[in-house]
Amino acid sequence: MNRQQLIEQIRLKKSYLCVGLDTDAEKIPAHLGRNAQGMLAFNQAIIEATLPYCVSYKINTAFYEAMGARGWELMQQTLEFIPSKHLVIADAKRGDIGNTTGMYAKAFFDKSSSGLSFDAITAAPYMGKDSLEPFFDFKNKWVIVLALTSNAGSADFEQQTTGGKKLYELVLQEFTKIGTPENLMFVVGATKAELFTEIRKYAPEHFLLVPGVGAQGGDLEKVAQYGMNSDVGLLVNASRSILYAGSGTDFATHAANEAKALQQQMEKTLNL
Amino acid sequence: MNRQQLIEQIRLKKSYLCVGLDTDAEKIPAHLGRNAQGMLAFNQAIIEATLPYCVSYKINTAFYEAMGARGWELMQQTLEFIPSKHLVIADAKRGDIGNTTGMYAKAFFDKSSSGLSFDAITAAPYMGKDSLEPFFDFKNKWVIVLALTSNAGSADFEQQTTGGKKLYELVLQEFTKIGTPENLMFVVGATKAELFTEIRKYAPEHFLLVPGVGAQGGDLEKVAQYGMNSDVGLLVNASRSILYAGSGTDFATHAANEAKALQQQMEKTLNL
Repeated sequence: MNRQQLIEQIRLKKSYLCVGLDTDAEKIPAHLGRNAQGMLAFNQAIIEATLPYCVSYKINTAFYEAMGARGWELMQQTLEFIPSKHLVIADAKRGDIGNTTGMYAKAFFDKSSSGLSFDAITAAPYMGKDSLEPFFDFKNKWVIVLALTSNAGSADFEQQTTGGKKLYELVLQEFTKIGTPENLMFVVGATKAELFTEIRKYAPEHFLLVPGVGAQGGDLEKVAQYGMNSDVGLLVNASRSILYAGSGTDFATHAANEAKALQQQMEKTLNL
Repeated sequence: MNRQQLIEQIRLKKSYLCVGLDTDAEKIPAHLGRNAQGMLAFNQAIIEATLPYCVSYKINTAFYEAMGARGWELMQQTLEFIPSKHLVIADAKRGDIGNTTGMYAKAFFDKSSSGLSFDAITAAPYMGKDSLEPFFDFKNKWVIVLALTSNAGSADFEQQTTGGKKLYELVLQEFTKIGTPENLMFVVGATKAELFTEIRKYAPEHFLLVPGVGAQGGDLEKVAQYGMNSDVGLLVNASRSILYAGSGTDFATHAANEAKALQQQMEKTLNL
């Protein structure tokens, strides 16, 4: 999916919601069965219930890897429920020397190799620009580089100052040298909304993937106020607050209501 | 495997060699078949041929994930060939918010959850100390945090100065606050051997996992000279130079010879 198609979907649905499929067998409604089959049924129901309100789904690979090979099958089966008009993100936070990152690119972008074809992958910047370059070689695919995350530990390194700027600002500066607004996004946590103004100086046109609204306590209005650009330029993720909105047989209805409420809040923030 | 057991194996074998199983279907001998079955036969032969000369194996997860669910099965099957006296490392470079890292810990440490039980996992430090904490909750398991890597891109962030020290030095300083020499190692590339003296000021007792000897051009003698401590404190990895030493039906013999040559070089550097 390219940038123009993503923007069209956002305008059409008046939503920049990404639903995070952090599916945990311990947390899904008991009647589904706390196993891979139950998780698949859960994912299908959540996707079908939330489709009208979101433009993207994000699969957190850790939750699937925790089940080993069966989890990877589950990831593949889950992708089949998601229509092509939704941007599908592998929240995998990968990154290694180029030779190895090429293999991760095959894993997440090349269906003929791995059975999986995501539109985007989240990536860790620590090892530098060359470590993520192979991800950029795939047409109409996206790399979403960690910049400023929403956890307390972001103070340890990301917010340290180097050469007159914060490390996350240096990450923004360096990766915008090798990626364009067509193939590069950044992860910026919602819990630091007032910093979006500074971030936009480094990445005015790039989409930002924003976790931390909902369970992590971020404020959607502030994110929109400080982070939105003329193409919207935001994908705001909610995971737990949608997935586990209900725990009974009507869990999908609760999830839909929660997603719809977020879409309606987003609609108010959009100047279309 | 605990620290004392690892040191015993190093003393016994006069080797601190880690063999990296970066198995690439495109590079294994053609007669094995360039598919998962061929890769498994290759891994078995390589492990059986190199066992006497090394104390550790490192599985680079990317090479397996590139094959999707089948690759994860292959990883599980490969682990079964490795005896318990060898430290088995998942070179996965994971890291996320704590909730998610707990899931990665299940994936790589908890056999009852994923079918996989590695002794150690490599991890990316960018998101801070709290992002890796769940890995430290497992007894007799190791976290191997990226400090200074051997790629050119390490100049982009790792070698930048923050608060009077390099970022990788800050990583060493911060993670030694939450990990001990019993559960924490660091990745330090062999191509920067002269920097080991400085690194040992931050992590005098910790084991260092050193990639970059062999195909990447690092120098084993210098690594030993500057990096070794009284418990040896080094695991030096070689991957491609061993795996692809031969391409015919006698590939395993060539791999054994290459591993043995490295072991003999290591023996010379050990003051036992």
